[in-house]
Amino acid sequence: MNADPNAPIGVFDSGIGGLTVAREIMRNLPSERIVYFGDTARLPYGNKSKETILRFSRQIVRFLKEQQVKAIVVACNTASAFAVDELREETDTPLLGVIEAGARVAAARTVNRKIGVIGTEGTVRSRIHESFLKKLDPEVTVYGKACPLFVPLVEEGWLHDPVTVEVARRYLQEMKEEQVDTLILGCTHYPLLRSTIGNIMGENVTLVNPAYETALALRAMLEEQGINRQENVQEEFPYRFFVSDLAEKFQSFANSILPYDVKMTRKIDIERY
Amino acid sequence: MNADPNAPIGVFDSGIGGLTVAREIMRNLPSERIVYFGDTARLPYGNKSKETILRFSRQIVRFLKEQQVKAIVVACNTASAFAVDELREETDTPLLGVIEAGARVAAARTVNRKIGVIGTEGTVRSRIHESFLKKLDPEVTVYGKACPLFVPLVEEGWLHDPVTVEVARRYLQEMKEEQVDTLILGCTHYPLLRSTIGNIMGENVTLVNPAYETALALRAMLEEQGINRQENVQEEFPYRFFVSDLAEKFQSFANSILPYDVKMTRKIDIERY
Repeated sequence: MNADPNAPIGVFDSGIGGLTVAREIMRNLPSERIVYFGDTARLPYGNKSKETILRFSRQIVRFLKEQQVKAIVVACNTASAFAVDELREETDTPLLGVIEAGARVAAARTVNRKIGVIGTEGTVRSRIHESFLKKLDPEVTVYGKACPLFVPLVEEGWLHDPVTVEVARRYLQEMKEEQVDTLILGCTHYPLLRSTIGNIMGENVTLVNPAYETALALRAMLEEQGINRQENVQEEFPYRFFVSDLAEKFQSFANSILPYDVKMTRKIDIERY
Repeated sequence: MNADPNAPIGVFDSGIGGLTVAREIMRNLPSERIVYFGDTARLPYGNKSKETILRFSRQIVRFLKEQQVKAIVVACNTASAFAVDELREETDTPLLGVIEAGARVAAARTVNRKIGVIGTEGTVRSRIHESFLKKLDPEVTVYGKACPLFVPLVEEGWLHDPVTVEVARRYLQEMKEEQVDTLILGCTHYPLLRSTIGNIMGENVTLVNPAYETALALRAMLEEQGINRQENVQEEFPYRFFVSDLAEKFQSFANSILPYDVKMTRKIDIERY
């Protein structure tokens, strides 16, 4: 591993959604450098098998290690669900997924012990949130629901559209009937639908955004290991972005999400790693 | 090339949609053997760059040639739009995309010379239908519209759902206003929405299904080159299916589309080709 506190954090995702996680790291750990990788040539991960996601993730970890990162954040929920355990065994670089921190906060917030999880087909099918939540509190009941239309609706830009409201109403109906009081937004795109989801669930339901919770967990981990960056040097390029396809398109989406002007995105051939 | 008439036809797609093309080949060329490849690990192709689609397609052509195919059908509209010209130059195996046959029929059917094309972002952006259509009839006007929500709606199974009808109404509004009299269903999933699209466009608009037209063009090409299969031997496995991810899921979808029981699907590592 690279124990240099000045080394960057590696953050990876199937594509652009992980930028919501990168954004929380920028906000909450402003001294840290970031190397971001989005697997835009092979996205989405949500409907693919564990074996394939694990293979893709291993390639990306090899690329990030080549970039000398000191820690890795798996920003994609599906990759976190399918690959974090194996990746952690295989590498000496500290590695954090987005599932655990979200689950911890949900377990702390729920009163009636009914927790909902929405995400991709892969994430929901893995039931990984449930296994974390049950360890924290064996009495909780977890309701999972895959919402495969949410990502294309967000990417179409229909965030507050009546079509999106109707789709969300259907996807969330069971959660409402089961009276969950806490709902984990288990896919990086979903925080962008926060107000639509919040209106349907009602103000008494807590929405958990794992991106924010993961940034806090990352800060704690870096401090504990003594590899947090102390200096706050103004740099020209503290954040570097890499993708496997279509750098321009990524860049324009990045600029709509990040409080920061993404000037340069480099395309790499991830299949070579 | 392999000039043995008994050799199989190679058919490839980004995933499952190309099975609608395979189905038309089975119906209209019942003596032919087929080797189908679906790139389920890297789907969809519709929102990715020409460069990436070309790289993926080259890998698949190498795989299909290893399978000794006598001809290749690029069943994916996006790959047909981005890769057919280059692939044709690089290989001596006769190769057919799905764009040309659909365009030819559309040009023959239109009366008012206003033709609509719906497809993925990549297909529509490429304006390839327009370039074929203009060669056939310089007087036609072509209206293109990307419909990125159609594929996830089909895969969710909401074929006749009010949400799908509303989404389709919006996507098709401009086509109706421009009074196109012919509409090319430029994505392999769209024939499954035929009745919804037909209801919105009205009975005076001709819907062109490139899958059917491509099967007829394939038959003509094989006969012209003298490599059509004459015998009609009953075989146990005339059709073989390969995918890059999740063979089981592919198989169940295949069984819902094909008039044939798909018993065995093999997963291969396409990145090695």
